[in-house]
Amino acid sequence: MTDKVTITGLVATTPRHIVTSDGLPITSFRLACSYRKFDRTENKWVDGEANWYTITAFKQLAINIASSINKGDRVIVTGDLHIRDWDNGERAGTSVEVEATAIGHDLSWGMSVFTRNVLVREHEPEPEVV
Amino acid sequence: MTDKVTITGLVATTPRHIVTSDGLPITSFRLACSYRKFDRTENKWVDGEANWYTITAFKQLAINIASSINKGDRVIVTGDLHIRDWDNGERAGTSVEVEATAIGHDLSWGMSVFTRNVLVREHEPEPEVV
Amino acid sequence: MTDKVTITGLVATTPRHIVTSDGLPITSFRLACSYRKFDRTENKWVDGEANWYTITAFKQLAINIASSINKGDRVIVTGDLHIRDWDNGERAGTSVEVEATAIGHDLSWGMSVFTRNVLVREHEPEPEVV
Amino acid sequence: MTDKVTITGLVATTPRHIVTSDGLPITSFRLACSYRKFDRTENKWVDGEANWYTITAFKQLAINIASSINKGDRVIVTGDLHIRDWDNGERAGTSVEVEATAIGHDLSWGMSVFTRNVLVREHEPEPEVV
Repeated sequence: MTDKVTITGLVATTPRHIVTSDGLPITSFRLACSYRKFDRTENKWVDGEANWYTITAFKQLAINIASSINKGDRVIVTGDLHIRDWDNGERAGTSVEVEATAIGHDLSWGMSVFTRNVLVREHEPEPEVV
Repeated sequence: MTDKVTITGLVATTPRHIVTSDGLPITSFRLACSYRKFDRTENKWVDGEANWYTITAFKQLAINIASSINKGDRVIVTGDLHIRDWDNGERAGTSVEVEATAIGHDLSWGMSVFTRNVLVREHEPEPEVV
Repeated sequence: MTDKVTITGLVATTPRHIVTSDGLPITSFRLACSYRKFDRTENKWVDGEANWYTITAFKQLAINIASSINKGDRVIVTGDLHIRDWDNGERAGTSVEVEATAIGHDLSWGMSVFTRNVLVREHEPEPEVV
Repeated sequence: MTDKVTITGLVATTPRHIVTSDGLPITSFRLACSYRKFDRTENKWVDGEANWYTITAFKQLAINIASSINKGDRVIVTGDLHIRDWDNGERAGTSVEVEATAIGHDLSWGMSVFTRNVLVREHEPEPEVV
């Protein structure tokens, strides 16, 4: 099994949307996830450091993100965590990426108007609603 | 630590919104989470049974859900799982509830237009966006 | 995707181990997961209610649990959550089950001596250790 | 809320145990988490790349890890994910760390003999076992 994470945070860059030469839609953006922590020596809540992620999505999710998510939005993301070392000859580093399986605007921070554009997905049936 | 879950599914009832006598907004609805599984004897994908949850939210999240989420929507929910036995004298049973910390429309299934109405939350600072 | 949970708790029953007529090992036990919560009206930590789960495991994991886990142990479990309504004609109810993908003794609560008896699993390669 | 992860993998370094000058036990090791993925072009399962984490634990959990976990063991870890950029003047990079709240030997891969040495934890009561 891959490493699953669910994170909530602030969209820190304008989502970048491309379509590959063989027709695959891809959207990605940077997400900053911060939290508060209790400092026992100071006996008060202080800012914890933020975790920064690159969020990547494919196919219909990528298309919907491109038309729905803007820099500054608050979102919830769940998906697979990928930690990769990279080296482009000049510089080297580590990227921390979440390949999203689902993303939504976090209603803790605002309201959203939803327009459904997928009726059935191959691997996920519609449960009967009673 | 409480038991955390992240689930995606279909909103199966119209969200019910109340405000308690001491002013606490509460919204709740039923969520059906289904998935496909591979049947090795049949050698094909078949419908798995759905998990049903009662989703409950409080305060600003409850207010935003009431004005944003409708029966039939696809959502992503993360929060604390509570499993409770109940007995009202006539009948007894087990409820499975998720107290949501974040909810959003699942952009795998559609587009959303977001209007932020919370600027800062007490325990969660805004990371500096560069 | 199925609904994933990770829980830590107290093994509340002696694990029950069976082998089905077609040779499948199955082990199951009940797990109680409790936590402390802060009561703002009392201004102190109080006991939260416990979540109770039936933990089920198959194959080699089932065999290893049967020889390793005892009632009263503290464990960590990760797996797929299944919520099922049942009705045996006389009584009806809801079961909350976790089909475990991994289980271990929680070293927050004690020490363990480990003897590995699986070298390679079909779907999970051994990473090269440097 | 902090970013929670649950991971299973191979202990890739001998755990390093220290006690700070003010008496805090800390244990850390490297964990390699790999998985198999299905290659549609090749139509077969292939090795996915491994995610590498630094696992860190404190207090009693640190003490128990130091006496229980060895390089080459298979473990399950749950905790808080911390992604940090570092720069020591000569080199810079990104560390991916999990501050563990619970760790155990993964019984999918072997057997363990457990000796409990913590009876009650301040914030976690013992549920009544019936």
